[in-house]
Amino acid sequence: MSAVGLICGSGSLPIDAADLIQRAGRPVFLAALKGSAAAEVERFPHVWIRMGEIGKLFRSLEGAGVREVALVGAVQRPALKDLRIDMGGLGSLPEITRLLAGGDDHLLRGVIKFVEDRGFVVRGVHEVAPELAAPLGLVGRRQPNAADVADIALAVGALRALGPFDVGQGVVAIGRRVVAVEAAEGTDSMLGRVTRLSKGGKLRRDGRGGVLVKTPKRSQDLRVDLPAIGVRTLELAAEAQLAGVAVAAGQVLLADRDELAAKADEFGLFLAGVPVAEAA
Amino acid sequence: MSAVGLICGSGSLPIDAADLIQRAGRPVFLAALKGSAAAEVERFPHVWIRMGEIGKLFRSLEGAGVREVALVGAVQRPALKDLRIDMGGLGSLPEITRLLAGGDDHLLRGVIKFVEDRGFVVRGVHEVAPELAAPLGLVGRRQPNAADVADIALAVGALRALGPFDVGQGVVAIGRRVVAVEAAEGTDSMLGRVTRLSKGGKLRRDGRGGVLVKTPKRSQDLRVDLPAIGVRTLELAAEAQLAGVAVAAGQVLLADRDELAAKADEFGLFLAGVPVAEAA
Repeated sequence: MSAVGLICGSGSLPIDAADLIQRAGRPVFLAALKGSAAAEVERFPHVWIRMGEIGKLFRSLEGAGVREVALVGAVQRPALKDLRIDMGGLGSLPEITRLLAGGDDHLLRGVIKFVEDRGFVVRGVHEVAPELAAPLGLVGRRQPNAADVADIALAVGALRALGPFDVGQGVVAIGRRVVAVEAAEGTDSMLGRVTRLSKGGKLRRDGRGGVLVKTPKRSQDLRVDLPAIGVRTLELAAEAQLAGVAVAAGQVLLADRDELAAKADEFGLFLAGVPVAEAA
Repeated sequence: MSAVGLICGSGSLPIDAADLIQRAGRPVFLAALKGSAAAEVERFPHVWIRMGEIGKLFRSLEGAGVREVALVGAVQRPALKDLRIDMGGLGSLPEITRLLAGGDDHLLRGVIKFVEDRGFVVRGVHEVAPELAAPLGLVGRRQPNAADVADIALAVGALRALGPFDVGQGVVAIGRRVVAVEAAEGTDSMLGRVTRLSKGGKLRRDGRGGVLVKTPKRSQDLRVDLPAIGVRTLELAAEAQLAGVAVAAGQVLLADRDELAAKADEFGLFLAGVPVAEAA
């Protein structure tokens, strides 16, 4: 069985993915980006790669018998002047220049094509390590009540309706009312807004209640850009006095599921994977 | 021709409405709410009414030959304990108590029914003074360019998609991307967010561009709850470096159209009424 190649950015996600893949009985090989990846990658067969060492990257992947590659963890968008293109990458310089000229979506789609043009198959991390994605059902002990379920359904509906408009991944519904919609500001900023509205008495609510629902945007390529829930999201949801967090099962990453379950319990939140038609 | 009765809250809207109705050759009668309405109501046939003087209100309207009534201007939601119910209102006390127990939409729908049950017809201010609502087309001299028109169309689409979810009246689109959706926080807060995102470099944009689009929410009863654009909205749109503001023609109030046109010109914004299917 060929090894899974992980091109590793920052955070614990690459390590978690490597562990899960190994535990499933499959070899891994990590290409760790210098300046981004954690030192812990060295627990696995690996190579350190500077941004731009494209020749070295592809030689290493081939040497390790990799055919499938996943991009995992966050990577700072490089400026062209910071790239140290190696000999193997020089021929690709015009292509790389074009990639960096566009927006993030353009860059990510370009990177996928770049890798696939060199004979590899690019997979989503949720495909090579399915346990990283949210399961269907509850994570942690807290249960949503009937009002929470109604709020989840409302928020999922609003997110689906916004799909064609490429609007953000998050909606907060409280008491059967959509009170916040995420667009360019991001989930954390939206949750902060809900907290301020709530403290300012601008939301009619009886104590704690309401949900954050997260799904991928329709235009997202799930192979490189899966939304993720971390402890910080749960913290902010608790500060916003929400009852819980629901995510699209299979399409949102829960980096360390056990830790998230424990934190959800600690914060008194439910955390649930719910069925949402895959972004297309 | 019977007089139009205006139940007057705060701001210049009641005065503007009264002027427009008189200029159209129709008599007006103003019931001015103490603590809310401006002293200028006294330029017109009027009566001052305390919250709760329901007997006096209806006697005055009848005495002035009013059959059609419009509610104009903002009114602070009264607490039941602050109401001074007069003799004529005492019989309605249980009904009033029920009205105040619900949300704002419930209250406004209840007020309409309360007034109509007493033999009056409730009209929207845009019906009795159509010139108060945004016209179709440009107000002021600035023209939107092709990119602005594309942003307007995108924002209108997002607002229509959100209609069934009763989400806010405003969307900001910049460079064919929805960057902010208004829900419970209100238009001003959303525009402030766009300014912060823009200053923080979180929006990809080449200088000034993008639009705010405002429409009524689908659940809004246009007779009592029409959204309005004021100078402050234009100021905040200019601070957010938008190219202009578009509103649903006929469904959004432009209180003083000449002043708004002058301010839009001064701020370098276009201001336009665009066709949007009426909220239903």
